[in-house]
Amino acid sequence: MVPPSSTARLRVRYSDIDALGTYYNSRALEWFEVARLQWLRDVGRPYREIEAAGYHLPVTEAHLRFLGRATFDDELVLSTRVQREGRAAVRFQVRVTHAETGAPVCEGYTIHAFTDAAGKPLRPPRWFLDLLGE
Amino acid sequence: MVPPSSTARLRVRYSDIDALGTYYNSRALEWFEVARLQWLRDVGRPYREIEAAGYHLPVTEAHLRFLGRATFDDELVLSTRVQREGRAAVRFQVRVTHAETGAPVCEGYTIHAFTDAAGKPLRPPRWFLDLLGE
Amino acid sequence: MVPPSSTARLRVRYSDIDALGTYYNSRALEWFEVARLQWLRDVGRPYREIEAAGYHLPVTEAHLRFLGRATFDDELVLSTRVQREGRAAVRFQVRVTHAETGAPVCEGYTIHAFTDAAGKPLRPPRWFLDLLGE
Amino acid sequence: MVPPSSTARLRVRYSDIDALGTYYNSRALEWFEVARLQWLRDVGRPYREIEAAGYHLPVTEAHLRFLGRATFDDELVLSTRVQREGRAAVRFQVRVTHAETGAPVCEGYTIHAFTDAAGKPLRPPRWFLDLLGE
Repeated sequence: MVPPSSTARLRVRYSDIDALGTYYNSRALEWFEVARLQWLRDVGRPYREIEAAGYHLPVTEAHLRFLGRATFDDELVLSTRVQREGRAAVRFQVRVTHAETGAPVCEGYTIHAFTDAAGKPLRPPRWFLDLLGE
Repeated sequence: MVPPSSTARLRVRYSDIDALGTYYNSRALEWFEVARLQWLRDVGRPYREIEAAGYHLPVTEAHLRFLGRATFDDELVLSTRVQREGRAAVRFQVRVTHAETGAPVCEGYTIHAFTDAAGKPLRPPRWFLDLLGE
Repeated sequence: MVPPSSTARLRVRYSDIDALGTYYNSRALEWFEVARLQWLRDVGRPYREIEAAGYHLPVTEAHLRFLGRATFDDELVLSTRVQREGRAAVRFQVRVTHAETGAPVCEGYTIHAFTDAAGKPLRPPRWFLDLLGE
Repeated sequence: MVPPSSTARLRVRYSDIDALGTYYNSRALEWFEVARLQWLRDVGRPYREIEAAGYHLPVTEAHLRFLGRATFDDELVLSTRVQREGRAAVRFQVRVTHAETGAPVCEGYTIHAFTDAAGKPLRPPRWFLDLLGE
């Protein structure tokens, strides 16, 4: 079984860009968050429900490669794939491209642990393992 | 009795500036927050202790006037004055200037209610009224 | 002639919310920017074209009233009306409500000057005055 | 010759923290920027002078590991080390710890190219190679 992928869209804001006229680097991590919350909605598990069920998904690691410029009013496409990472973690892989041209903007991943509210690691919930075909 | 005033300093970050090379407007509200947390520390009431005592200070209103440019690495001075606003609220008035030249950057105020954790309005605590000479 | 109004939508991001679980106050100014860039697109004058024509619209003043909570994944509606402000300025009035319930989130305005790239005030362009029926 | 290291300090802002009461992940990249601009000032090459000399240092890659919580008013120490990365790039390695306890908050690196204003790669300037003992 192939893990599900997901697509989100957003428009670059003026507040996202810096003195060089392209997006400021930390904004990519906010876009990655938009991407993974969309993925969770798309698989029928909005993050709010995950939290209500007692799970949290704090980020433990992130990697980004900055590939091209994007300026305000540009429409971007965020493509997300998800895979298990070790026993208690999950990796969201995101690629950001220009909606109009497909030109790359940035790509990378964040790794998240499943924990309870106090931060204690939990085994991923059953529905998540099922989604990944395990 | 004159209500106490307070001064904070910060350095403009590259992430604060936009395509025109000056600070993006919403950053002024983050600086105002730096200013009022410094004021609270200076009067011996760190915000963390206020929260621990069951009080919250959500912002209910804000006003800003943008007066001049500021770019990254610039050092700014934030001058804060505080006054009571009606029965259950407080006004933090902040003026931001360049440390080196005194040239104005922005000024304005935020108004905050005293509430409990659920958002229910509370009378300002005694120490606060004493500070303002009431 | 009635000046045109405009509507934008956005979803609150996890990065928008603070320790109290509602949006951090400065985010409202970023949403106002989303609202006015949408208004400019809706009237056929994307901000990028305005800049290309030699006009800039720096914000000179802002006012916000915080009216209700909004948390991540909430969909918001941003309603924008525009009017002239004195000889060389324009006021964007924005009201933000919950898409699902209509409950208010915040409202306010930003005032912008028409200037050239160097910041020198300019008379508003003809198309803008026409839009406002003058 | 040992490449110089540098230390910066900052205080976590209320606007830095999220619904879980700890810093939002993208803020780490803004702190890394604070760290490297301090390093450049400490070695006598403020970024503004580097730009004035025709060099830019866009980030091409970033990696972050999130190691511990930090909440508002916490004082953090940012320790920066720099090394050359290939022929035309530089790596800033940053470690963020609590000022009071030394407990880790996050660590990681950003890689930057030396380019001209148009984004064309340039050989690192002589002073930079000298700093690194090459």
